[in-house]
Amino acid sequence: MSHAEIIAALKRRMGSDAVLHGREIGAKHHVDFSGEHACAPLALVRPASTAELAQILETCSALGQRVVVQGGLTGLAGGATPQPGEVAISMERMSGIEEIDRESMTAIVLAGTPLQVVQQAAADAGFLFPLDLGARGSCTIGGNIATNAGGNQVIRFGMMRNLVLGLEAVLADGTIVSSMNKMLKNNAGYDLKHLFIGTEGTLGIVTRAVLRLYPKLPTKTTALCALPSFEAAVALLHLLQARLAGGLSAYEAMWAGYFHHVVDHVRGGRSPFGARHPLYVLVEAEGADERADRERLESALSAALESGVITDAALAQSERDARSFWMIRDGIAEITPLLQPMLAFDVSMPIGEMPEFLARVDRELAAEFAQVTNLIFGHIGDNNLHLAVTTGREADMPKICDLVYAATGAHAGSVSAEHGVGTLRREYLHHSRSRAEIELMRRLKAALDPQGILNAGRVVPARPHED
Amino acid sequence: MSHAEIIAALKRRMGSDAVLHGREIGAKHHVDFSGEHACAPLALVRPASTAELAQILETCSALGQRVVVQGGLTGLAGGATPQPGEVAISMERMSGIEEIDRESMTAIVLAGTPLQVVQQAAADAGFLFPLDLGARGSCTIGGNIATNAGGNQVIRFGMMRNLVLGLEAVLADGTIVSSMNKMLKNNAGYDLKHLFIGTEGTLGIVTRAVLRLYPKLPTKTTALCALPSFEAAVALLHLLQARLAGGLSAYEAMWAGYFHHVVDHVRGGRSPFGARHPLYVLVEAEGADERADRERLESALSAALESGVITDAALAQSERDARSFWMIRDGIAEITPLLQPMLAFDVSMPIGEMPEFLARVDRELAAEFAQVTNLIFGHIGDNNLHLAVTTGREADMPKICDLVYAATGAHAGSVSAEHGVGTLRREYLHHSRSRAEIELMRRLKAALDPQGILNAGRVVPARPHED
Repeated sequence: MSHAEIIAALKRRMGSDAVLHGREIGAKHHVDFSGEHACAPLALVRPASTAELAQILETCSALGQRVVVQGGLTGLAGGATPQPGEVAISMERMSGIEEIDRESMTAIVLAGTPLQVVQQAAADAGFLFPLDLGARGSCTIGGNIATNAGGNQVIRFGMMRNLVLGLEAVLADGTIVSSMNKMLKNNAGYDLKHLFIGTEGTLGIVTRAVLRLYPKLPTKTTALCALPSFEAAVALLHLLQARLAGGLSAYEAMWAGYFHHVVDHVRGGRSPFGARHPLYVLVEAEGADERADRERLESALSAALESGVITDAALAQSERDARSFWMIRDGIAEITPLLQPMLAFDVSMPIGEMPEFLARVDRELAAEFAQVTNLIFGHIGDNNLHLAVTTGREADMPKICDLVYAATGAHAGSVSAEHGVGTLRREYLHHSRSRAEIELMRRLKAALDPQGILNAGRVVPARPHED
Repeated sequence: MSHAEIIAALKRRMGSDAVLHGREIGAKHHVDFSGEHACAPLALVRPASTAELAQILETCSALGQRVVVQGGLTGLAGGATPQPGEVAISMERMSGIEEIDRESMTAIVLAGTPLQVVQQAAADAGFLFPLDLGARGSCTIGGNIATNAGGNQVIRFGMMRNLVLGLEAVLADGTIVSSMNKMLKNNAGYDLKHLFIGTEGTLGIVTRAVLRLYPKLPTKTTALCALPSFEAAVALLHLLQARLAGGLSAYEAMWAGYFHHVVDHVRGGRSPFGARHPLYVLVEAEGADERADRERLESALSAALESGVITDAALAQSERDARSFWMIRDGIAEITPLLQPMLAFDVSMPIGEMPEFLARVDRELAAEFAQVTNLIFGHIGDNNLHLAVTTGREADMPKICDLVYAATGAHAGSVSAEHGVGTLRREYLHHSRSRAEIELMRRLKAALDPQGILNAGRVVPARPHED
């Protein structure tokens, strides 16, 4: 079927105003935040309701037409970037909060709602919606669900998967599956929501969700610690988890290379310590009682100092202090443009594997490249390491990728901790997943989308003869 | 194929000592803890390894032979009770702890390991494995995973699903899928473990798992509160969740009928309150600092008293006090034999629906039966209500079931909060799940077990013409 015939069929079904094509489609719909492989979709449709989305998928399914789903387009894995000949479905018109249930402490939101709007609505009702990440202003709840988003507070509240109680989704053939559960306990049959969380739109398109809210905790205490070694960072993590009794809300490690690069290159960057240390950890604790919570963190850090687990510590005395500590952690966003061309890795592994993994990567990078920068930081309490690697030469990038992902696989790690797979990491998946796992993913994909029209070519690696 | 031929085929593959039949099979393998519909299996096989289990399933798959999987047989939904002609696979020989990783705070355990053995191994290593339920001595980790077990600490740590980081399972055709992830963050493709958690052995048999451990918290503070109304119980829940900042580890509501029935009928039962109140709540808070944690709970309860949210409160002054409070909550086990024939319901619903649901059930029971007892308690912070209903007449049971489950469905509730579906609740599932959801469950079942040999006839309701 020709492109014109597909556009005509969609217009017949949806009305001619509802289907955009050619120059009518804004450039933002051509590529996600990775900026790679921009491509105009064959057409753009923007459903305003679950029923409209079901009609679109029914039409595309009847035509065997591939579609790509777009939320806030803040992904970094190419998942929402159109591939040639795909119809783009943007969820931007399905935006809004349908309900805040104060008794159940739940919110019902449409998939196209930006994360920050949900955070604000929860806060206005006196609650916390704890998912938080840099793209909060643009990323959408549907995208957060599709990619099982992580972010800054995973150590306390878990990934997006833990914050979704129920959802509604449309399957490739247009079937609407509503599973809008509000309960923490519900074992009445298969928990179908997990088919759509973290599967990046390849098994169905999420349209609405029931989100879990938490009581808003009034106090936050922030500290920056200097440590002698990685082993000390593991010891400090365990010490704080035990002594703060669940109150630890951030544990962000920064290796010296990263820390001092940011302090030296970012305006206003400043280390509170006189000396240089091998490792730094930003610690945050949340609670309900300012004085008691502060005392608890102080006493835990004193114990860590006495036992040599930390070498030095600075407790934020003001909101401004806390911001200056976070500025170092968030400084990656400011140094990234200065380091281009650069590769940003988002890997995870058992915490005990990290020292050897990092040593291997440094050793192999040094053996391969005369000049190389590798800045390391991460949510190590969640097993997550970020590496920013550059040699200054675009041509070295594929080799750096191969080297880092092979080392990740060798240390029982994941090639994508929180950013997803999309198209850009799909061919590295085998480092983290066995053949049997990948075959089972294929089996699920074939069961829910037998024609392969939904976000085709994303996540699940192609068989050698396919694609 | 005749039964003798199937037994012969299994013996050829597994060795003749490995396959029991007839009187060699202990009666415990005939029925689960519900005691209903006991039935001897055609044969019993007890694999000692994942490879052996794979061989058994390969053989059964080739013969189109149905199998039933058995863990500790403590289920209450008939899931592990053989149906005529099924081969029983007991996981009892696959028992043991393979690893406790102190750095990752994880344990690797075989599916047949009793829960209590895992709890003890975690405690011996200085950690907490937080799943806890009455059957801890007999139930197995594999069964806990298959049924997504709940229990007493869900409000703080979530269901079993939240405690499983990775697992290994064998599919109906004998394929081994190993997904032994140890990381909190891992978005490298579909998170396959959710296919096997809470699906009651219908999509695969779990053989090993990576479990998440927590720091062992040293202090526990227990209180019993008397409340004027259900609305007050919701207010107290929210107040404690906010003021204890995540430290609330149990919130067990008991309606007056239940509370006083236990106090009057269980030896040693005693109310700490002089007067009778409409509702009681047992509260428990865990922490790391005895004095501070106790002060925090006391101050929260004082605030609740002042604002009229609670009428009275008794703070446990000793371990013995705490045990006497828990004895009332756990008294259901002692009064159950005295109330036979009795139906024990395990439903969940949004907390705001509970008052009308309970009023409807009481109204309808009273209209239907001249004499009826309905004792109510539950983990209401997890949305879970337990009802123990009896008229004293076995013949009334089906009508009581229909009445309670219809009311559950009408209040957006689940016919199984934590006990699972098995065979006994399968035909009530439609009260909680839509036709589209049940069709999607069937689609998954067909994709993973096309011959329908694994725990057939459990969980997913039959199509009208099937079974």
